[in-house]
This record gives sequence, C-alpha cells and structure tokens, in this order.
Amino acid sequence: MSGTRERIVEATSALFMERGFSGSGLKQICAASAAPMGSLYHFFPGGKTELAAETLRSSGRAYQLLVEAILDAAPDIVTGVGDCFTGAAETLRASDYADACPIATVALEVASSDEALRRVTAEIFENWVCSAASRFAAAGVNPARARELAIVVLAALEGGFLFSRAARSTTAMEAIGRSMTDHVAAALRS
Amino acid sequence: MSGTRERIVEATSALFMERGFSGSGLKQICAASAAPMGSLYHFFPGGKTELAAETLRSSGRAYQLLVEAILDAAPDIVTGVGDCFTGAAETLRASDYADACPIATVALEVASSDEALRRVTAEIFENWVCSAASRFAAAGVNPARARELAIVVLAALEGGFLFSRAARSTTAMEAIGRSMTDHVAAALRS
Repeated sequence: MSGTRERIVEATSALFMERGFSGSGLKQICAASAAPMGSLYHFFPGGKTELAAETLRSSGRAYQLLVEAILDAAPDIVTGVGDCFTGAAETLRASDYADACPIATVALEVASSDEALRRVTAEIFENWVCSAASRFAAAGVNPARARELAIVVLAALEGGFLFSRAARSTTAMEAIGRSMTDHVAAALRS
Repeated sequence: MSGTRERIVEATSALFMERGFSGSGLKQICAASAAPMGSLYHFFPGGKTELAAETLRSSGRAYQLLVEAILDAAPDIVTGVGDCFTGAAETLRASDYADACPIATVALEVASSDEALRRVTAEIFENWVCSAASRFAAAGVNPARARELAIVVLAALEGGFLFSRAARSTTAMEAIGRSMTDHVAAALRS
C-alpha cells in the first residue's frame, strides 16, 4: 500500500460524507489529498468510478469493524445496540454533524444512475446485515428473525443519521436508539 | 401558477430522486422540463438554490399528503402503517427502484454543505414527524411517545428506501414494515 493511495482514498471518503459522489470532483479530491492528478490515475486507472468503488469498500469495511467492536465489547447484545446509537449520536455532535454513514449519500445518488457502484453499495449493506444478524443469532434470536432484526436496526440507524444531520440535533438518533434496544430485547424474549 | 413553472419543479424533483442535487445540472433540468434557461431564471431568480428549495418543499408536501391519505384510509393506525410500507415496496418495484423519498438524497448531500437547503430539509422532516405523531396520538398513544414513534417509523421507512434501492429488492422494506407494525401495536398496548 502506498501512502499516497491511502491518502487519496481517505480524502475521497471524507468528501463523499460532506458532499456526496457528484459533488466531489477529482480536482477537489486531488487538492484534499495533496496528490497530483497523475497519481490519482496511476492508482485508479478507471478514474472516479474505480476510486469511488475502492473508497466505498474501504470505508464500508472500517464502519463494519467499528460497529462489531462496539457490539462485541458490550456485556450483552441489547446494551451493545444501545451503545451503537449512543456512539453515533456522540460522533455526530463531536463532528458538527459531518461524520455519519460513509455509504448512504453515495448509495442514494447512484442507485438509479450507476449500476456498477449500486452493486458495490448493495454488497456493503449485505455484509453489514450478515455481520449484525450473526451476532443477534449468537445472542439467541432465531436465524430468520435475526436477519430481519439486523435489517431493521441498521435501517433505523441510517434514518437516524438522516434526520439528525438535517435537524443538527441528536434527538432523533437517541429516540431511535431507545426504540431499537426495546425491539431487540423483545426479539430475545419471543 | 404557470405551467412552465410547474414543469420545471416536477422535472427537478424527478432528477433529484434519480441523481441527487449535485448530479442535476440546470441544463439537464431545462432539457427535462422543455423550458429555456431564461424561463428558469425568470421563475427562480435565485437560481439552483431557490429552485431546489421550492422543489423540496413541493415534493415534501406531496409526499406528506400521500402518507396521510394512506393512514387516514386505513381502518386503524397499525394497518395504516403497514399499508405505507407495502405501498412503498410496490412503488419501488413499479418504478424500477427510482420512485422513493424525494428529500433524502438531497438532505444528505446538503446537510454539511448548504445551510439554507439543510434548513429546508429539516422543516420538511419536522412536518412529517408532526403529522404522523398527531395520528399516533389520536389513536391513543401518549403525546411524548407518539412523537418518538413517528420519528422511528419514518426513519425506518427512509432506511428501507436506502436498502431496497441499493439491493433492487423490496425484502428490506417488507421486513421493516412488519417490524414497524409490531412496534406501533406494542406502543398502543403499553
């Protein structure tokens, strides 16, 4: 791995969170990563699409590892889910509502307009769902129900990022976190 | 209201859903609405920001009326919430996964980069939450809980659009719909 390549991917991920895929031009990416355009095309001969795919995969993996670390550090899965929402709310406040899901903005932009990138976002969400579902199943939820529960919790987290960023308030994320811990607790009881 | 003005707003709304705010250029908007650039600036002297604000408000209102109509036509609020998710899934399939929330993509794009439009999206989501909360309260949920319930249901719907569009499958939206009807039924019992 080259330091320049990593810098380009990190700068792209930050720009995608701040202004999305279409709003992040290659010139801006070069400026933000202090890399010349030639470097960018050296590492990503496929240009913006190849760079975007690599950035989404890399930040999708990092985000999954973060959520897994929070869930695995908690004494039980209900507490772990609550910790994910509390952590998301804290990160939103600390980053002035900029540090949120690294995939969602781009996923919505490309869903109907870039089939290659649409598939990349679908893979990432599927990995997240499988990861959360395996933890719910390990905690005692039956496997079919565990997958549905993972979808609901992650979808609600995404909705929480959307509403909290729009309102510049973590009230929505906190309310959603309380509902989701109740929801997971109910699934464990049934 | 002028026919041209309406056509411009409708074309902008469709483009925003398909490719977001940054991906929708004024030239594309003129082409899609068969309006000359001079017309666009005649109706929206503030250019893209003014047009975007008007488009978001207009499609936000239309979307709210649609959800209210579905909720009010149902025999009870639990059925109504289920109908909203079933309807969203049907619309996604029928539109080849293009017709989804008219606000979310733009809201995520502008949240950290355009304060005027960020405020417009926050107002729209707040109107949606108040509208749904008043219906939950009317169905017997206590007012504070009704607001939280509205936030959770709408956030989950947004997450459902995101996951279902990315996967080109309504499985996520359907699973989330089942969970949300359970969630609303539980809130009515407690």
